[in-house]
Amino acid sequence: MKIERYSEGVSLKRSVDSGTDEQRNTVRDIILDVRNSGDLALFTYTERFDGVKLTGLKVTEKEIEEGTAALSKEHIAIIREAAGNIQSFHQKQQRNSWMTTDETGTMLGQKITALDAVGVYVPGGTAAYPSSVLMNVLPALVAGVQRIVMVSPPAKDGKLAPVVLAAAKIAGVTEIYKVGGAQAIAALAYGTQTIAKVDKIVGPGNIFVALAKREVFGDVAIDMIAGPSEIAILADETAVASEAASDLLSQAEHDPRACSVLVTTSLKLAEEVSAEVENQLARLPRREIAEQAIKDYGRIILCEDTADAVEAVNELAPEHLEILTEKPLEVMAKIRHAGAIFLGRYSSEPVGDYFAGPNHVLPTNGTARFSSPLNVDDFQKKSSIIMYSEDAFRDNSAKIAAFARLEGLEAHARAVEARKTNKGGSAGCSGLQT
Amino acid sequence: MKIERYSEGVSLKRSVDSGTDEQRNTVRDIILDVRNSGDLALFTYTERFDGVKLTGLKVTEKEIEEGTAALSKEHIAIIREAAGNIQSFHQKQQRNSWMTTDETGTMLGQKITALDAVGVYVPGGTAAYPSSVLMNVLPALVAGVQRIVMVSPPAKDGKLAPVVLAAAKIAGVTEIYKVGGAQAIAALAYGTQTIAKVDKIVGPGNIFVALAKREVFGDVAIDMIAGPSEIAILADETAVASEAASDLLSQAEHDPRACSVLVTTSLKLAEEVSAEVENQLARLPRREIAEQAIKDYGRIILCEDTADAVEAVNELAPEHLEILTEKPLEVMAKIRHAGAIFLGRYSSEPVGDYFAGPNHVLPTNGTARFSSPLNVDDFQKKSSIIMYSEDAFRDNSAKIAAFARLEGLEAHARAVEARKTNKGGSAGCSGLQT
Repeated sequence: MKIERYSEGVSLKRSVDSGTDEQRNTVRDIILDVRNSGDLALFTYTERFDGVKLTGLKVTEKEIEEGTAALSKEHIAIIREAAGNIQSFHQKQQRNSWMTTDETGTMLGQKITALDAVGVYVPGGTAAYPSSVLMNVLPALVAGVQRIVMVSPPAKDGKLAPVVLAAAKIAGVTEIYKVGGAQAIAALAYGTQTIAKVDKIVGPGNIFVALAKREVFGDVAIDMIAGPSEIAILADETAVASEAASDLLSQAEHDPRACSVLVTTSLKLAEEVSAEVENQLARLPRREIAEQAIKDYGRIILCEDTADAVEAVNELAPEHLEILTEKPLEVMAKIRHAGAIFLGRYSSEPVGDYFAGPNHVLPTNGTARFSSPLNVDDFQKKSSIIMYSEDAFRDNSAKIAAFARLEGLEAHARAVEARKTNKGGSAGCSGLQT
Repeated sequence: MKIERYSEGVSLKRSVDSGTDEQRNTVRDIILDVRNSGDLALFTYTERFDGVKLTGLKVTEKEIEEGTAALSKEHIAIIREAAGNIQSFHQKQQRNSWMTTDETGTMLGQKITALDAVGVYVPGGTAAYPSSVLMNVLPALVAGVQRIVMVSPPAKDGKLAPVVLAAAKIAGVTEIYKVGGAQAIAALAYGTQTIAKVDKIVGPGNIFVALAKREVFGDVAIDMIAGPSEIAILADETAVASEAASDLLSQAEHDPRACSVLVTTSLKLAEEVSAEVENQLARLPRREIAEQAIKDYGRIILCEDTADAVEAVNELAPEHLEILTEKPLEVMAKIRHAGAIFLGRYSSEPVGDYFAGPNHVLPTNGTARFSSPLNVDDFQKKSSIIMYSEDAFRDNSAKIAAFARLEGLEAHARAVEARKTNKGGSAGCSGLQT
């Protein structure tokens, strides 16, 4: 890996694949077709794109049990334990509705409500990751979402991957359908005869899925559009080079466009990590992918001191950040922008990918500047509550009417004044009875 | 207004203006031009679209003082008091970072950080509302955002509306620029010589502003795309017809596409409100707008009982909901989908628009099913914190490696196992020192 000295202005940004005009038009046509023809369109596209003629879309209880039975007891136990950890961490994110009162009897508050229904997209084929099922489903479950609908494209044999079905069952998915691509997103957004529409769609997918999510955005909510994975490691001379190198490679094996960056104050470590990466690369099964990623996006940035290194990391705003320094908590306090922060050598990034509990769906491509890990808030929404008392109203109505007139909105002013003229005139709803 | 009996499937949805191909191309060209030419492009477009040749973009301290001086002391005092109420409500939304520990010494947590910089778009001309400045700026300020940048298109005299400048000063905006339209959004998203880029853009605007926000979405965060305003009133026979009618009209005067709906269990009230609306309409300054809105989107829905009325409101998922019933809190508890809920006759909707404290930037067009009022969370983001202890790591590393191999990600498994082989071999960062 190339070692370069830090100069301001480092960036992880890679160009985002926003699709070709042809792809965008294809996606629009598919969505329109699903809106018009419902299930029929889903069967047609599944035959065309996935090469399988289905007789039903819904995955049966029997199929789910078969899927679960195909996994070893050990694997099931590990997935269950991971699910428990994820659930437990996300429960700590739970918020309550609140209300405040004042001496006049006015009540103001914020009511938290779970979304009614959420759709989770799970890619098919080799990219079908059970950990991704857990990470997308469990925050919704903890949030109190009643309907959690999973969709995934079937393989040529008309089935979904056993490991995905097992993870869906463990996570508590309520419905599973064999449909993928833009047609699955359209079905979730607008509903068909078999699939009732949802309020939000989450989960990763290929370019057609990403374009379809952008297209339906507004009619339903969507999660972020995820880019290739990233890791930055902020390390000083106390870090173990072989460990840092293996963590850089664990990101690189995801995708030829994945980004692995070491930010360090130690030239010795920089040189050792560079050598270790070459060394370990040679023995990796996904060597070709990792090698390409390291070649194109791997960097070692040498900094004068820790303050410089912190500045570099804040500029990068990485998806994953490992802090491998003598005093990692002190460094963490100064980090403003990172999706997930792993402290110390026992917090290797895969610990968080699978097991520790925090979500592995994280903001990429510098968006940690303004985005968060997937969390319980993403599956709930707020309503403001305003219950003005008669006293507060009489004290403030003239001011409110004056403000409305300052903006030229006379009907607003009159709506407030309508109450003044009704003083004592009605036995009607007072707003103070419950 | 037409009275109809409730049957399932009512909807507030109006078609969203997604712009013409020509408009989209214009917006893309403007954005590209601002990215390439910076300030120069801003001056050019301001001359072309706003008809004014500026010599500088930044609003000076002197201009802000002149703006504030143009307002009466009474109006300044009202705006200040409203700002105080809004600030106070939003402070209650503040959340803390948290950490948990377990007996092995593992620490997991969530760190909350304010965004670094936020841009607030404020429309020009007659739609320049000081209340909108307060509602968009103050949650960012409460969240801890250090840089709050306001942009607004100048009038022909090269100035911004005094009332907007006064509100900006009261709210605590840190920079103000005279630029509007798609070019202002591009400047906020990508930066120019004069305007440094921000992390999130909020605030309403015309179709060009809305299209530009959609276009830069992903490179920066944006708020929701707002549609025309809506109100639903859920009322029983205890409601005062003239008050309900004036509240319906206060929404209708905003926009010919605004939507005002009465949902009631009382035929008598339905008939009285219908008559009152006609009556009051005749005397409104913005009669033409309100009349069109009531004609096209005004509805009175008559329900069998309160349960039916609640169901109808949940289907509508209105931006504003007034509950004018004998026991409004009991009804509120059953409402799942509404942006802001106003209880009782002293909580006329304009009370919330201007003064009570909760935000008036609210989800429209049925999006209250999955969106929230603008709030402090919108200006902060989270980072997960993972600090695994040596004990926890040794207990779980084999399981984590097995999970990684189940997904075919060998480098992930090896990253975990790299630590095992270093047992006792390093005096390096333990993750347990601070």
